[in-house]
Amino acid sequence: MIIQLYNRDEIERVIRLDTRLIQEVETAFTALSTKRVTMPPIMRIDMPEHNGEVDIKSAYIEGVDSFAVKLSSGFFNNPKIGLPSANGMMILLNSKTGEPQAIFADNGLLTDLRTAAAGAVAAGHLSRQNSRVAGIIGTGSQARYQLQALLAVRPIEKAFVYGRSKEKTERFKTDMEGELGIPVHVALEPEDVVRNSDIVVTTTPSTEPIVNGDWLSPGVHVTAMGSDAEHKKELDERAIEASDLFVCDTIEQSKRLGELRNLQNDKLVHSAVELGDITSGHKPGRSSEDQITICDLTGTGVQDTVIARYAFQLLEYKEEDIHERR
Amino acid sequence: MIIQLYNRDEIERVIRLDTRLIQEVETAFTALSTKRVTMPPIMRIDMPEHNGEVDIKSAYIEGVDSFAVKLSSGFFNNPKIGLPSANGMMILLNSKTGEPQAIFADNGLLTDLRTAAAGAVAAGHLSRQNSRVAGIIGTGSQARYQLQALLAVRPIEKAFVYGRSKEKTERFKTDMEGELGIPVHVALEPEDVVRNSDIVVTTTPSTEPIVNGDWLSPGVHVTAMGSDAEHKKELDERAIEASDLFVCDTIEQSKRLGELRNLQNDKLVHSAVELGDITSGHKPGRSSEDQITICDLTGTGVQDTVIARYAFQLLEYKEEDIHERR
Repeated sequence: MIIQLYNRDEIERVIRLDTRLIQEVETAFTALSTKRVTMPPIMRIDMPEHNGEVDIKSAYIEGVDSFAVKLSSGFFNNPKIGLPSANGMMILLNSKTGEPQAIFADNGLLTDLRTAAAGAVAAGHLSRQNSRVAGIIGTGSQARYQLQALLAVRPIEKAFVYGRSKEKTERFKTDMEGELGIPVHVALEPEDVVRNSDIVVTTTPSTEPIVNGDWLSPGVHVTAMGSDAEHKKELDERAIEASDLFVCDTIEQSKRLGELRNLQNDKLVHSAVELGDITSGHKPGRSSEDQITICDLTGTGVQDTVIARYAFQLLEYKEEDIHERR
Repeated sequence: MIIQLYNRDEIERVIRLDTRLIQEVETAFTALSTKRVTMPPIMRIDMPEHNGEVDIKSAYIEGVDSFAVKLSSGFFNNPKIGLPSANGMMILLNSKTGEPQAIFADNGLLTDLRTAAAGAVAAGHLSRQNSRVAGIIGTGSQARYQLQALLAVRPIEKAFVYGRSKEKTERFKTDMEGELGIPVHVALEPEDVVRNSDIVVTTTPSTEPIVNGDWLSPGVHVTAMGSDAEHKKELDERAIEASDLFVCDTIEQSKRLGELRNLQNDKLVHSAVELGDITSGHKPGRSSEDQITICDLTGTGVQDTVIARYAFQLLEYKEEDIHERR
């Protein structure tokens, strides 16, 4: 048995944040709603004296012939020694025999892509078809991927960005204008981003809400993808109250790690809808031009399984291609 | 960053079931008793329609600069298509930065070795110094490793073996006589093994006790390493009652997955001792020639971390060696 080990460079060469990838990730949400999925609770190993943690996620979709196990780490002293704080790898296993099929030493690339693709899936079902202005809060790598992902599903003509660091925000503007060919305006406050955009994506590790419900105007869509832990939060409760449709990847995770955590108003939880119910057609997405919609993404193991399978297909295909040419 | 991927053949070439390995595994038990160890509950992903499961274990020993994450699988339809039912791999990660250091695609070899080494550690502290007769119940690969491990710590001159399959038992005899150079006698009943041996090792997936307390004579040591799940059991309660010293790798796991599970007599649990308390010198092991001692091994993530680190050392050393010779 030979296991392929692919490093980040090799994976980067074959995978793109394009509509095909977005469609693949959409099947992950549909599977969550329509198939039996085994997704055990996240395993976490803490190394407090190094300010680090490793999380392990996995998800098996019944009937699918392989599944992923993902290790992702955050070591927050790393930047001091010139290393990124995030790292990770995925392992793809055969669901019928347990044999490892491939290892992706991707340093978190596939996680970044599946998270961005989820933003595109949310925008594709929840934002107005004619959304032309994107607003991004946050300036990290996921902020960049999210903006790129929106361009794949909506006719975005310009963007607003807000970040706490002026330097990073300026760099975001310069880089994104160059890469995507649209003007990017730097906003001085989150409020300016929210009030001026058709689609808002929040991508911060904030522990205090940065989006105020009063800023939401009819027709806007907000994707909050920053909160994925018990101490994080990006939207205030009024934002959730103001929405006509509140969607999340999984209600259980949103209650524990996301925007449904610690709400005063219990009814808000009961009216929440899962994204897979919409992608599968069981429930409607946006149904009018002036609805306010919100999607809270905490990240699921099913997305990992789907993107690992997709990456393996692309890499295997590429190898066949190379063999043929030889 | 380059991650080394080692396959089973490469690992097999450098690692031996010798006293050095046994000493390394002993440090794992000592760490469990003397250091802060983070060992999260096992993550399990079931694939019931394929009669398969994948377990994920990990353990971080405070102050140790790397730790392992282990995937181990059991797919019980595999033998029908000519594949082994067990499979697995280990990943060694840097505890200060989270970076993956090495991947061992070992098909369970390191697990087999660390389990066998634990048997040797138990026998080294609990069996009589002059134990000359080994008794093995079970004929699988772990039965073979356990017998080999005993020879590393005690002056074993002959062995008894019992297995349900006559054919496999005969093969065990032939193979072990050839490999180890000692006579191996096939017993017709487990009782014959237990009554005739100084050290007994049970290595079965039995769900009903196969060792009866009445068979235990003064001075005997029994290691039960088969039970590692809620439905398994190898010793009857009278065996535990008959023992002067009952030891296990972790009391918590033994109560949940091992021989301390479902006992009528609660007091037995309270007098159990952990192996690490003995290897660290905090508590005595065998203290007289006629004590009856038992050790229940369920397997711990700390053993995985220790053997993965040891294998990496050996493999790295070997690579340096190759470079020097070039």
